[in-house]
Amino acid sequence: MAGEFDFIESLRQRAQNRPGVICGIGDDAALLQFDAGDHCVVSTDTLVAGVHFPLDTAPADIGYKTAAVNLSDLAAMGAQARFCTLALTLPSLDAGYAAALIDGLLELLDSHAVALVGGDTTRGPLSLTLTAIGSLPAGTALTRAGARAGDGVYVSGSLGDAAAGLTLRGAEHAGAEGEHKLARKRLLQRLARPSPRLALGMALRGIAHSCIDVSDGLGADLGHICRASGLAAVLESASLPASRALTTWINDPQQLLALQLAGDDYELCFTVPPEREPALAQIASATHTPITRIGIMAPGEGVHYLDDAGELMAAPARGYEHFR
Amino acid sequence: MAGEFDFIESLRQRAQNRPGVICGIGDDAALLQFDAGDHCVVSTDTLVAGVHFPLDTAPADIGYKTAAVNLSDLAAMGAQARFCTLALTLPSLDAGYAAALIDGLLELLDSHAVALVGGDTTRGPLSLTLTAIGSLPAGTALTRAGARAGDGVYVSGSLGDAAAGLTLRGAEHAGAEGEHKLARKRLLQRLARPSPRLALGMALRGIAHSCIDVSDGLGADLGHICRASGLAAVLESASLPASRALTTWINDPQQLLALQLAGDDYELCFTVPPEREPALAQIASATHTPITRIGIMAPGEGVHYLDDAGELMAAPARGYEHFR
Repeated sequence: MAGEFDFIESLRQRAQNRPGVICGIGDDAALLQFDAGDHCVVSTDTLVAGVHFPLDTAPADIGYKTAAVNLSDLAAMGAQARFCTLALTLPSLDAGYAAALIDGLLELLDSHAVALVGGDTTRGPLSLTLTAIGSLPAGTALTRAGARAGDGVYVSGSLGDAAAGLTLRGAEHAGAEGEHKLARKRLLQRLARPSPRLALGMALRGIAHSCIDVSDGLGADLGHICRASGLAAVLESASLPASRALTTWINDPQQLLALQLAGDDYELCFTVPPEREPALAQIASATHTPITRIGIMAPGEGVHYLDDAGELMAAPARGYEHFR
Repeated sequence: MAGEFDFIESLRQRAQNRPGVICGIGDDAALLQFDAGDHCVVSTDTLVAGVHFPLDTAPADIGYKTAAVNLSDLAAMGAQARFCTLALTLPSLDAGYAAALIDGLLELLDSHAVALVGGDTTRGPLSLTLTAIGSLPAGTALTRAGARAGDGVYVSGSLGDAAAGLTLRGAEHAGAEGEHKLARKRLLQRLARPSPRLALGMALRGIAHSCIDVSDGLGADLGHICRASGLAAVLESASLPASRALTTWINDPQQLLALQLAGDDYELCFTVPPEREPALAQIASATHTPITRIGIMAPGEGVHYLDDAGELMAAPARGYEHFR
């Protein structure tokens, strides 16, 4: 690969044409068109080597996860993902490595019909910044601020798999056999390739009062809904969904809860008023997404946890904050 | 500063409300509105410490330049700059340093009424990725592909200041006096704080056949117009505009030309058909932007330079490519 321009040309050739892309990769900027009456939804996330993923992560997984965490933010708004730009910083332009990164990125983007419309390649310590752009009909966005007292609190999929995967990456677990081996593989997969819940987010328009994605940890993220809505959340800790893969490895309830609250799962957490809760079964079925009721919004502030006996628990381990 | 959330909150409080911002900093994604009939214009650029700016650059200048180089891409499309997101990667959350970065960034954004609507802060080697979002009426974008044989080739402002500023940064020039001292200060300023030519870009809608901004060097950038348009460009090297500050320091014509072709000036280079060239004087005046005719588009390929005698020159030094 001769240089930056050749790399950009190879990206241009691989980029799919999608509705709304007037001009994609190859000019000073991309030109995009939104339908009349739609709002544009924009989110940016950076993944840095050694911070957001271990240095030996497979490049295709890095590309995949960078796209996934960004599309997850659009899912949390109820948006349809449409376009994205990629700013790729690489120590050197290793053609095979860069191509593998892009393979993983495009695998996820293509599965959601999202167009890569531009970006930048620079030399420097490995990091990827993706800006995801989506659309939704004006007035239908799911925000953090709309929760009301009495809303049920829900979460999609299961919690704790990614954190367990991080724990199980080490060589000391590589020799696991049988059920433990399969479960470990599944947990590593959930860490490496999270599924942004885009179909669910769109289906929750007009249903959920508020929504957020679980990236920093359930407590931290639901805490944002509480602050923005001026409410408390009361969760039944035993109701937090755990995958079969996770419970294969983890039996201790406290250890399980700590993993479930650790974040990086990219599930949606949302609140739904009682009269709309019956609609959720159909939504779960139509979007092929498990949905679990985990608690209720109430007057007050902060996120609180009840144990099996219905008693308030001492504050469990918190989510992850990048600077501390 | 206690952490990432406090930093984001401080940004949220400083962000100006602007038309089209339905929801800015503080949710999973920003919600933006475009006028009916407008296209959305998106560009992403990353600046990495030690690659795009020296490690000892003042943080306010880093913030300013990051915004400037991105808005310059929107200018090259003829777009009005509207919104942006910032992905900021810092080795540690030094509150004063981060605030100074943001000061410089917002100084430029505010001067062009651009809203900071979201972003991400992460820990890692210092770099900034800005995604700039603009708008323009459908069908009015200036691209690289529209040049025609016979178009005059124009450039805004002057060329070579930034490259000269980089050369003159060193301590051996710090003792310059009088005219040389003032000129050095001006050249350093042009390196640190380039001016995106947004007003000019918008004024060139319906006038220019093609446009690009001069970031990688005039030859490389005009070369993109040539390739995209299937043409050659023939430039009179003596007509390339040089600032008084630059000629104060540089007399040798070859040295001058090398600096003028080195890039990082963020001027616009554009082509205009003969019948519209008379309109440029009024545009230059209305946008307070010097405009210089430097050559002509012709059948063929590549960028060619004529010397004072009108003879073809051997290829001068090329622009900058990040990976080589």
